[in-house]
Amino acid sequence: MTRIRLCVEYDGRPYMGWQRQAHGPSVQQALEQAIHSITGEQVTVEGAGRTDAGVHASAMTAHADIAAGLTPFRLMEAMNARLRLAGERIAILAAATAAADFHARFSCIGRAYQYRIVCRRAPLSWEQGLAWRHAPPLDVAAMQRAAAVLVGRHDFSAFRSAHCQAKSPLRTLDALQVRAHGARITIDARARSFLHHQVRFMVGALVLAGRGRIGVADVEAVLARGDQRLIRFNVPPDGLWFQRAIYPETV
Amino acid sequence: MTRIRLCVEYDGRPYMGWQRQAHGPSVQQALEQAIHSITGEQVTVEGAGRTDAGVHASAMTAHADIAAGLTPFRLMEAMNARLRLAGERIAILAAATAAADFHARFSCIGRAYQYRIVCRRAPLSWEQGLAWRHAPPLDVAAMQRAAAVLVGRHDFSAFRSAHCQAKSPLRTLDALQVRAHGARITIDARARSFLHHQVRFMVGALVLAGRGRIGVADVEAVLARGDQRLIRFNVPPDGLWFQRAIYPETV
Repeated sequence: MTRIRLCVEYDGRPYMGWQRQAHGPSVQQALEQAIHSITGEQVTVEGAGRTDAGVHASAMTAHADIAAGLTPFRLMEAMNARLRLAGERIAILAAATAAADFHARFSCIGRAYQYRIVCRRAPLSWEQGLAWRHAPPLDVAAMQRAAAVLVGRHDFSAFRSAHCQAKSPLRTLDALQVRAHGARITIDARARSFLHHQVRFMVGALVLAGRGRIGVADVEAVLARGDQRLIRFNVPPDGLWFQRAIYPETV
Repeated sequence: MTRIRLCVEYDGRPYMGWQRQAHGPSVQQALEQAIHSITGEQVTVEGAGRTDAGVHASAMTAHADIAAGLTPFRLMEAMNARLRLAGERIAILAAATAAADFHARFSCIGRAYQYRIVCRRAPLSWEQGLAWRHAPPLDVAAMQRAAAVLVGRHDFSAFRSAHCQAKSPLRTLDALQVRAHGARITIDARARSFLHHQVRFMVGALVLAGRGRIGVADVEAVLARGDQRLIRFNVPPDGLWFQRAIYPETV
């Protein structure tokens, strides 16, 4: 049995999310089916993050244990051929042999997401579902000031979904950077791990700040009190991209 | 009658091209139908360039003459609403009143295209149809050397389609820049006008140079002789984007 590490890119639009679902297509299932059709094995593909429906990945790390004697390169080539044939919007960008104790989810010490906003009145054409269109103007400097407040170790209770299963609402946000390139605004978030919907709720708060509806003091108050009412705004999944998973150099 | 100038973005994948066709959807027809459904007028929308099937536009300039007393802003908003409702992949980014003698095609003194290559073995996921995937590695420096030879005033006979209706094969290529950002290679071409398929044939020659199949001397020889056989390689429309139309400041 060989543990294979995969780097996976996907378009989240056709999927119910990363995780296998009874009621619709998932990235995990598509990958497991591709491996099954190649080696005949029923494997579980574990990912660094379980992205929600409609969320994309530039580079998701995953692993699977394969008994068949394929090199990682041959497995990748065969998986890409199957995925393409099946009309999936998933591509394996890299594959390598991993240590037996490497785990895409449990070994991961950092996760980076990017949220993409296109600030304009016109609808999106080629970018439909790949970014979030926001018509009113946004004050990027105000968003940056609000973002600076969120960085660090905090109780993020106000920024988690009702379905969040994490035991503790404490998380350390390593970075939250807002950048503007013309009408395009990107928000890069990095942490060891995030609460369920944390990135989308944080982006929602930044957007409220960018609209002038809330200020730094409001974000501070919400972090201090865990009060969900003031800035409870969950932005759509369209703009969210899982950018990369970070591992210790030794695994 | 007011002449309105429009800036149009579109995803070329669902269309037979810019120009109205008997046998399939076109960007021009979608725009004309949107105007008809708003004002009841049968107008012709003229564009700066007539892009082929599957070619995209970041910012195509177009114009139309409208009798109804709408402001350009109201027309744009109404067109975007109709286009969205009709499921079109077209967005009007800007609209303004133009001089009566402004013509999107005939007043245009410069056209900029970008060709987008993703150099990798894995299939494309979210970018399917929006870029061209090229599996073998490309030598970007060799592409840049070949590009430098094409810049200037030349007989581009070897770089035009058999259906090209231009009287003269002489064109002045103002710029042809090859840039690499990781696995992504962009080729920016700018000229007053291009022959039919000229950008795609030029990109084809650059790709052959990047594969080491031809060199600077071959490109020079083809330009000098107009010989089409050596480097006749028309890359797919997927990667081609009309980037912008340039006009004199006075129109």
